[in-house]
Amino acid sequence: MFDLNSYLTSKNKQINNALNEILKQDSTRISAAMRYSLMAGGKRIRPVLCIAGAEAVGGKAEDVLTAACAIEMIHTYSLIHDDLPAMDDDDLRRGKPTCHIAYDEATGILTGDALLTLAFQVLSSDSTGHHASKLLKVINILTRAVGYKGMIEGQMRDVASEGVELDSAALEKIHALKTGALIEASVTSGAILGRGTAREIEHLRIYAKNIGLAFQVMDDILNIEGDPAVLGKAVGTDKIREKSTYPSVMGIEKSKQAAKNMINNALQSLDIFDSKSDPLRALATYIITRKR
Amino acid sequence: MFDLNSYLTSKNKQINNALNEILKQDSTRISAAMRYSLMAGGKRIRPVLCIAGAEAVGGKAEDVLTAACAIEMIHTYSLIHDDLPAMDDDDLRRGKPTCHIAYDEATGILTGDALLTLAFQVLSSDSTGHHASKLLKVINILTRAVGYKGMIEGQMRDVASEGVELDSAALEKIHALKTGALIEASVTSGAILGRGTAREIEHLRIYAKNIGLAFQVMDDILNIEGDPAVLGKAVGTDKIREKSTYPSVMGIEKSKQAAKNMINNALQSLDIFDSKSDPLRALATYIITRKR
Repeated sequence: MFDLNSYLTSKNKQINNALNEILKQDSTRISAAMRYSLMAGGKRIRPVLCIAGAEAVGGKAEDVLTAACAIEMIHTYSLIHDDLPAMDDDDLRRGKPTCHIAYDEATGILTGDALLTLAFQVLSSDSTGHHASKLLKVINILTRAVGYKGMIEGQMRDVASEGVELDSAALEKIHALKTGALIEASVTSGAILGRGTAREIEHLRIYAKNIGLAFQVMDDILNIEGDPAVLGKAVGTDKIREKSTYPSVMGIEKSKQAAKNMINNALQSLDIFDSKSDPLRALATYIITRKR
Repeated sequence: MFDLNSYLTSKNKQINNALNEILKQDSTRISAAMRYSLMAGGKRIRPVLCIAGAEAVGGKAEDVLTAACAIEMIHTYSLIHDDLPAMDDDDLRRGKPTCHIAYDEATGILTGDALLTLAFQVLSSDSTGHHASKLLKVINILTRAVGYKGMIEGQMRDVASEGVELDSAALEKIHALKTGALIEASVTSGAILGRGTAREIEHLRIYAKNIGLAFQVMDDILNIEGDPAVLGKAVGTDKIREKSTYPSVMGIEKSKQAAKNMINNALQSLDIFDSKSDPLRALATYIITRKR
């Protein structure tokens, strides 16, 4: 029986060590702020998905560790900028003051910029023996996922939708852009660097698309039913901001059912893989049972 | 006799067409904001330097046009974020309302993010026949130049230095980071993609380092002696903000002499090149005679 907890513990350790290694030598204020946000105890879902994607196709964690770190940097940059006063204006993230509160707003903006830039720096200097063309492809996939037609467009729509009632299609589109695109890119990047075939990569893409959506549905549910002490952030904020969420559009029970269906679709897409994809299977289940 | 004006007109047209081409199909608010800032009439110094760097080593403008566009995107992103209320809080840029004024602050932040991301997207999908390893090297050079040990660190120091009296060494360091690094990377990226030798690239790097510094010294001088109508932005702002500048540290005449010396060093470094480096020679002279 596959043990997700020990898998997550071991991968998180690997990822955290690698992230520490990248930034350890610097004593500037900006590098301190980067470390502060990067090492604030995130769940590392995306980098773990990248590693698990590589492993599913027969690759090794070591081969994609740099890409996994780059993905966590991109994710952290997006959180820092989302938390800024001009955006969601959040003071708390992962149970700690947000970057612009712990430092200042200018530093918050620049720390996000720096992490985004560093992601492409580490990817472009990855010396673990990948072909340059593969790394270039991963950079391309990631930039498309988080660019103005991906995550950034999702954030634009999200900001614009406060106080507006959305239907479930508009809501799903926001989530697909805002959260789904990077999750999809995380898994496929791992699969590409792990030397997966086109068919394997496509199956993993469908897996990721489904768990990405389910992940966001659960985020919405946790914003209602979650425990702020466990979550490390306030709950009930979506309602205060009059944000359309899955629960607000289709009710909480139907939302839970929708998330379950998505996870089933994700698991089905893994049918072509052997036990090397067990981490991905367990992660899918984790997503709809998580408390934080 | 080389005619810089017609050279600049022709290259600017090429660059603007290429930039327009990249963004033309999109009708979202974010792409409109990206176009707004990108097409606001910048001087295109950096992309022209990239092209001229390629030409100096025997390459063609067409071969580095994508990289030139990426560099202008990175430059524009840095301006948009520098202008934000939490940073320099500027309302006017290139004679037009800054991005966060024309749109809103959230859009300003995201537009900068989007342009930075798009720069690496276009570089990683450059299909003009470059080897993937060369493109990866250019991405690496650019990310290092504008990352947390380059331009971003320069901006951190710049923000921290308001109201603080700096000596000329500290000032030079800020400028080298904030402006110099990207200018250096622009020329060397062009030279790399134009297939320059290591010796050629090194000579161009020294050229770029010198003109980069001279460019910033002139910026400081124009902030005192410039005509706001020609500059497209307010003058006297450095003094109001109590910013240390070359003129404030060493006086205006010595600053002008320093800029001239840097330009001479830059020109000397071009001695190994033939007439194909005439655009670079003319650009060096332009930098200390420009009015905007």
